[in-house]
Amino acid sequence: MKIDEIKIADLKPEKFIKDKIGEISNIVGDSIAVNALSGGVDSSAVTMLAHKALANRLKTYFIDNGLMRADEPQRVVSLFKKMGVPVELVDAREQFFNALKGIKDPEEKREAITQAFYKDVFGKLVKKSGARYLLHGTNLTDVEETIAGVKRQHNILEQLGIDTQEEYGYKVIEPLIQLRKSAIRKVAKDLGLPEEIYNRPPFPGPALSARVIGEVTPERVETVRKATKIVEEELRNTIAFQYLAILHDDKVTGVRGGKRDFGFQIEVRCWESKDAVVASPTRLSYDILERLADRITKEVPGVVSVTYNITKKPPSTIEAV
Amino acid sequence: MKIDEIKIADLKPEKFIKDKIGEISNIVGDSIAVNALSGGVDSSAVTMLAHKALANRLKTYFIDNGLMRADEPQRVVSLFKKMGVPVELVDAREQFFNALKGIKDPEEKREAITQAFYKDVFGKLVKKSGARYLLHGTNLTDVEETIAGVKRQHNILEQLGIDTQEEYGYKVIEPLIQLRKSAIRKVAKDLGLPEEIYNRPPFPGPALSARVIGEVTPERVETVRKATKIVEEELRNTIAFQYLAILHDDKVTGVRGGKRDFGFQIEVRCWESKDAVVASPTRLSYDILERLADRITKEVPGVVSVTYNITKKPPSTIEAV
Repeated sequence: MKIDEIKIADLKPEKFIKDKIGEISNIVGDSIAVNALSGGVDSSAVTMLAHKALANRLKTYFIDNGLMRADEPQRVVSLFKKMGVPVELVDAREQFFNALKGIKDPEEKREAITQAFYKDVFGKLVKKSGARYLLHGTNLTDVEETIAGVKRQHNILEQLGIDTQEEYGYKVIEPLIQLRKSAIRKVAKDLGLPEEIYNRPPFPGPALSARVIGEVTPERVETVRKATKIVEEELRNTIAFQYLAILHDDKVTGVRGGKRDFGFQIEVRCWESKDAVVASPTRLSYDILERLADRITKEVPGVVSVTYNITKKPPSTIEAV
Repeated sequence: MKIDEIKIADLKPEKFIKDKIGEISNIVGDSIAVNALSGGVDSSAVTMLAHKALANRLKTYFIDNGLMRADEPQRVVSLFKKMGVPVELVDAREQFFNALKGIKDPEEKREAITQAFYKDVFGKLVKKSGARYLLHGTNLTDVEETIAGVKRQHNILEQLGIDTQEEYGYKVIEPLIQLRKSAIRKVAKDLGLPEEIYNRPPFPGPALSARVIGEVTPERVETVRKATKIVEEELRNTIAFQYLAILHDDKVTGVRGGKRDFGFQIEVRCWESKDAVVASPTRLSYDILERLADRITKEVPGVVSVTYNITKKPPSTIEAV
């Protein structure tokens, strides 16, 4: 299938939005459609487009996998509620942590999350909803990376455990497939979404599980969640490309109240980059670095040591796992 | 036993040296004595004092445990040779790596090294040498920390597996027991030892094994040895209290030649401190930090990521394990 790219220079957001609302409306008709919202710019734009096209014939789920940042599920759901878009918050934390139990290998962790999401949680919701249409925020880069073999293929129905042959009639709608990220940000802005959505810094699909080296448990996610909150608070004004906290599996020696305290280490990364292809560490002042270390060791239980990554990409990557 | 401290203000190095040479000479008489040299300031001062007292009736061993820094055993031995002090270099790398095989716990690693040194390697050398006198660089802080329970007790004969009751006649001579480190540095300087000995920055007893998180293998020690060499070269002029490289057990994602490369991470620490009780990270420039990261990722095989520790002590400690 050849996809005609709409370049950002050629994009007329108003016309694009009007066209897509018309298309979605025509395809779904009087039926109902379903989608999953994560709070990222792609799924947020799709939710808003489909809401404008279908109103209460759209069923949107926000799946809380237990791996989100502090208060993120509640914040995203209430943000859409304020805009008149009903979103059902699904507590699936137990399913995800069960799927992740005992897994240390990064690839296996990703696979466990994908399986839990598509097969175990969202797949069941789609079937239960009775919807025959599924909206998905696939963008042009996703398609290209799938073809290049960089990303897992996004044949969404197959991933949902739905045999398209057998259950004929299911249809996937991908309204953003002609756009790249920067164009989607423009559309999202024009759709009336707030800046925290249309300018949201990149955040990995597997969420905080990508920020935990070693096993992903509720306790370990809570540790990196607290550190992430501090890093985001302290570095928000740096206008850096991306900033993040990573919980290491290695333990290191520390001392508290004069006593030896074998504890956790948090690694902070803050990147200067245009495109994430090459990147270098932001030259943060030592006042900021020491405040980060002080706050993280004081406010995050069990952490005795904080490092700052000083490597360029390449040979480093933006994320650690 | 009450030990009379000689405070640095009261120390007359020349007189101290003359007195100790006389004492050692009187005690050992026509017998032979034995000692182990590590290249640290304590064992170097003892070697020099005993050499001046006993000449060829002193047998000095340098035990290469495979955990030293690049070329350290050869450099120390040839340095003493140039000063006319014969030192026998004992290759015990296999014994130490065998003792360390499979051990990840820091306390167990320390214990394995202690056992390998005292029981397996040096203990046997002492017995074989026929010496009835053993010289040891115990200082006043060692004694106090032993009494306080901070350090392992240093009853040296017991650690050598020598029952003092049964093998009556063994005698330990501790010529530095009235001094603390700063006084020993003064004595070492007056003994004619070079600055790289009398001003040597602190280096842990278990050597590079203290700089490896996880299992200590010849390959992993070689990795941290190469990183240590770069860190010492680049940070020598910072006049920081101490600087070091740590090899993590955690692996992180990197990219080389456009391909994913799951590799090692090195953590650099550089400390400002007067007494090692409290310390803070040196505010190294980003030019230095980036050069460290560039050199380590280019020159040390397998390393894709370098961090700089930004935590104060407390809650951190100087070393990681």
